[in-house]
Amino acid sequence: MKSHTEYLTFNTRHEHEYVHITPQVEKAVRQSGIQEGLALVSAMHITAGVYVNDNEEGLIEDIEAWLEKLAPKNPAYKHHQTGETNGDAHLKSMLVHHQVIVPVTAGRLDLGPWQRVFYAEFDGRRNKRVLIKVIGE
Amino acid sequence: MKSHTEYLTFNTRHEHEYVHITPQVEKAVRQSGIQEGLALVSAMHITAGVYVNDNEEGLIEDIEAWLEKLAPKNPAYKHHQTGETNGDAHLKSMLVHHQVIVPVTAGRLDLGPWQRVFYAEFDGRRNKRVLIKVIGE
Amino acid sequence: MKSHTEYLTFNTRHEHEYVHITPQVEKAVRQSGIQEGLALVSAMHITAGVYVNDNEEGLIEDIEAWLEKLAPKNPAYKHHQTGETNGDAHLKSMLVHHQVIVPVTAGRLDLGPWQRVFYAEFDGRRNKRVLIKVIGE
Repeated sequence: MKSHTEYLTFNTRHEHEYVHITPQVEKAVRQSGIQEGLALVSAMHITAGVYVNDNEEGLIEDIEAWLEKLAPKNPAYKHHQTGETNGDAHLKSMLVHHQVIVPVTAGRLDLGPWQRVFYAEFDGRRNKRVLIKVIGE
Repeated sequence: MKSHTEYLTFNTRHEHEYVHITPQVEKAVRQSGIQEGLALVSAMHITAGVYVNDNEEGLIEDIEAWLEKLAPKNPAYKHHQTGETNGDAHLKSMLVHHQVIVPVTAGRLDLGPWQRVFYAEFDGRRNKRVLIKVIGE
Repeated sequence: MKSHTEYLTFNTRHEHEYVHITPQVEKAVRQSGIQEGLALVSAMHITAGVYVNDNEEGLIEDIEAWLEKLAPKNPAYKHHQTGETNGDAHLKSMLVHHQVIVPVTAGRLDLGPWQRVFYAEFDGRRNKRVLIKVIGE
């Protein structure tokens, strides 16, 4: 079994941002030399997510509005008694999930025609990391 | 390390459908010959999901009603400016998540007594695929 | 490829409980002897979840209140026609997701500074299991 691990760092300009990272995942898989296996793409922070969906600007705006509706900013979160103000970002992270597995087949990402990997930032403007770990053969 | 990859194709009769696919996952694991490992079951489309829960008709109706409440059909989604009408299906897919990992132990799916694998279709009536990739030894 | 499988059993005092299980996952990884790989942590029941987020008491109360809002107790669930009363617990399990993959690097859990693994019980006060399966080398 081979394995290959990389860390991406993001420092987004906005508090919320949806960053298309399929190219970085492809590159990691290529560098791994792995032909058959699994690529884990996992946020290392608890106020960010990783998901697979469409790279379409309108949909991304819909996702942002939807997350704000289901996990809204709210000064009353108990988490804020610690001095934090990002309770909603934790809940958004849980809703989106913080990781995906991309299957690797014949040395390539085995994604459907419209599947793209996104890093979802909910508390940006500082360095945050995503781990990519490819295992296989 | 061994690996085995299969693709299932679904063309559901209804726009929304919840298809029990544990038998197909079991078959893929059997064909892989893998005794210890992980089986990834992952939708290849961005308007479908894969989840593990109960194979009980009432619960499936509850899930359908719940998803419609949290990620409703709505003509106003910005995604619809592309000509699409399935914005809600993308959000439902994100809520359910598009993949699960089924552990494989002693050559069998290592699921709890009531755990069953489901393909959740949110924009059906056309060919859509699910990937099963088993890795292990 | 090596693999190592463990089962944890929980019998929580309360119907809902959020149990910090990072130490148990660390121990399983140590016992596996695996240096590079993936650790699957997966609930074996359909009324429980496993997630990664902050070990902060206020946030855990926020998560509980948020799940109750998005997937409330409701006597009207169709699932209850079977005699069950835990329809909401199934939906909460789906929202949180029932599993995570923890990457293993240099023999340790490769988590970010605040990432902790939690078992989320939504229908407790009886024996329920979580599987940990580590694969790698």
